[in-house]
Amino acid sequence: MNDNGIIEKLTKLFQEFPGIGPRQARRFIYALLDKNEDFSKELSLAILELKKNTARCGQCFFAFEAANSVSAGGKSRCFVCGDSNRDGSLILTVERDVDFENIEKSKLYNGRYFILGGVLSPLKPETQKMVRFRELFEKVKSDRNIQEIIIATSLTREGEATALYIEKILNPFVERKKLRITRLGRGLSTGTEIEYSDAETIKNALENRK
Amino acid sequence: MNDNGIIEKLTKLFQEFPGIGPRQARRFIYALLDKNEDFSKELSLAILELKKNTARCGQCFFAFEAANSVSAGGKSRCFVCGDSNRDGSLILTVERDVDFENIEKSKLYNGRYFILGGVLSPLKPETQKMVRFRELFEKVKSDRNIQEIIIATSLTREGEATALYIEKILNPFVERKKLRITRLGRGLSTGTEIEYSDAETIKNALENRK
Amino acid sequence: MNDNGIIEKLTKLFQEFPGIGPRQARRFIYALLDKNEDFSKELSLAILELKKNTARCGQCFFAFEAANSVSAGGKSRCFVCGDSNRDGSLILTVERDVDFENIEKSKLYNGRYFILGGVLSPLKPETQKMVRFRELFEKVKSDRNIQEIIIATSLTREGEATALYIEKILNPFVERKKLRITRLGRGLSTGTEIEYSDAETIKNALENRK
Amino acid sequence: MNDNGIIEKLTKLFQEFPGIGPRQARRFIYALLDKNEDFSKELSLAILELKKNTARCGQCFFAFEAANSVSAGGKSRCFVCGDSNRDGSLILTVERDVDFENIEKSKLYNGRYFILGGVLSPLKPETQKMVRFRELFEKVKSDRNIQEIIIATSLTREGEATALYIEKILNPFVERKKLRITRLGRGLSTGTEIEYSDAETIKNALENRK
Repeated sequence: MNDNGIIEKLTKLFQEFPGIGPRQARRFIYALLDKNEDFSKELSLAILELKKNTARCGQCFFAFEAANSVSAGGKSRCFVCGDSNRDGSLILTVERDVDFENIEKSKLYNGRYFILGGVLSPLKPETQKMVRFRELFEKVKSDRNIQEIIIATSLTREGEATALYIEKILNPFVERKKLRITRLGRGLSTGTEIEYSDAETIKNALENRK
Repeated sequence: MNDNGIIEKLTKLFQEFPGIGPRQARRFIYALLDKNEDFSKELSLAILELKKNTARCGQCFFAFEAANSVSAGGKSRCFVCGDSNRDGSLILTVERDVDFENIEKSKLYNGRYFILGGVLSPLKPETQKMVRFRELFEKVKSDRNIQEIIIATSLTREGEATALYIEKILNPFVERKKLRITRLGRGLSTGTEIEYSDAETIKNALENRK
Repeated sequence: MNDNGIIEKLTKLFQEFPGIGPRQARRFIYALLDKNEDFSKELSLAILELKKNTARCGQCFFAFEAANSVSAGGKSRCFVCGDSNRDGSLILTVERDVDFENIEKSKLYNGRYFILGGVLSPLKPETQKMVRFRELFEKVKSDRNIQEIIIATSLTREGEATALYIEKILNPFVERKKLRITRLGRGLSTGTEIEYSDAETIKNALENRK
Repeated sequence: MNDNGIIEKLTKLFQEFPGIGPRQARRFIYALLDKNEDFSKELSLAILELKKNTARCGQCFFAFEAANSVSAGGKSRCFVCGDSNRDGSLILTVERDVDFENIEKSKLYNGRYFILGGVLSPLKPETQKMVRFRELFEKVKSDRNIQEIIIATSLTREGEATALYIEKILNPFVERKKLRITRLGRGLSTGTEIEYSDAETIKNALENRK
């Protein structure tokens, strides 16, 4: 069977994508083989260009197209950090680029962002290095405009551990710079039924009633 | 086949239970036939006794065992309404008995309850009569201790319509009796991931941050 | 809470039904309490009558309404065993009443049945007593008309163990009475995709091609 | 947001893969951005090489690595068609490469294959051109060794339409060349429960009993 060489190699590479197992990777291979050569060339080129033509914003680390960058003070920034109408006193700290995109899509937030690039996994200490904690610390230290850090990690075990760690490292600025550190509100979310709610959600929903 | 008579009749009766379709109802029939006669007798008797030996609390309408009732002022009450340590100024208004039970299980709430017995379905006006709106109105009108009504309906279309209607009918008491009408807090609930949150949840989570 | 007495008792009884856990059992309780007393009485009576008004066929052990029974040779039989147009040389041996009903619904089979009442679980030797192996043996031994036993157990581990055991106990009749013992055909079933088929199904599908 | 340029373009290209929607395509983008540049280069190159280094077998149309090809009579063939121990009188006709791979994995089949490359969708007449019906016809016409065509399409509406069409176009060879045209056996497949079987499966299981 096709157990070595380029088919096996590409099957392994496709498995590096989130949520792709060996069977679906193999289906990708045969889909590629069924398409004409122009598709392969276009895809191959686009993958190379992606890295070349994108940059991470120096302010918030959101990945954006170089062509879409906004020049501000001689530096290239993303469309949010380069927009002077956005409130620079507010920094929403999210786990990943997709979180940034989902919140922007809602058009409900007018502040700025910070993308951590990952979460702290309590059982894997090495994950600490993969998250931009130092960059967040330096940003808060050096940016005079920041008045509030909104921690917007997911309500999962990892998201919670990440939030706690951010609170700890930014704590010195609470007194020194009068920084507010907040977390997203908790309680019922769309579709929640009282009958099936866990104790933690009931607790938050009762405390945060209004 | 067994298409009329007692098997068909009992199949139809079992389908009156929530979540039971014709196939599962039929499986119940054969399960009964496979059990001995003592089981049928015990089940039959228990169903009759359920109605006889339970009562709905005159205060909150929770269904409870007559044997568990608490006598207070000559009237029988459920274990919450009969407990003088519970805070009678707070009334948590829920859709159903199972909501009451789920919140009690969490041991996080020390006030009292009111069980609506159903929800208002915007497309079915007749549902209005099936919900204890009048009883809630009379309770708030006559009970001097009540200071706050916490509306704890589910975050579904029906739950929201029910909450709005409660706010409307209790509105006269806000000024007259300084009644507070609150709703359970909203935002992220356990397990919520930012990437998959809908705009409504993001809006509530941002507004209710703290 | 309602942790003893009739509510708890009935919750436990409802959990005896297949597929019903404690939460759904409790929902049944509150559904009963929300219905009027006539419903409880009707349900209670129907459960008692089920046992009284049904009988298992003396030939195939299918449970049927006494009122639907067919008198044949002074004995009460189910509508299949009492129908002289059905082919008595063919006995389809199924696990349960619901299997009988599903096959009858298809109107594709003109022989008779035998209901085992259960399956042999390889890890639970006591299950052997709960299946009508002895009754099947006696039936084949005494009924001169039978020429073929079609084993129609499910293609699960338990169904397979049950089929093997039937083959073993009926084996003496293969030579003595020229009994044919067959099993339902195997291969692709509706919806099967070759890509996702297991080796056993591929093997059967290849062997049984035609 | 990233709504045009390379990110949007690559998002669209990834959506060409089977089972990939816009949200997962976007996650692939961010996964690529989070990996180092070597990964992008390796992936880009592998996609180009896939087309260059693979070929479809001239006999069965299975896609295989050029390096794995077997030379036979001056022509390059796949590992099955190039293996003289495989039975060339038997051709198993499957929809796709993944079906070939799944059957080979089971090691239960010693004949050869033919890959149709698609299915006939009854509602889309244009699908007829995308399936290798002509190539199958020519192969059967010219290859003297072939004695049996096993149609191994899926038991879906499209698979059935495809099988019927193959029977129709190969029909002339049944008499002329004494060709056998068979279909995979039908009946119960692994895990099938009698209670939930559809009429078609019951019919096949009864007919094909043995």
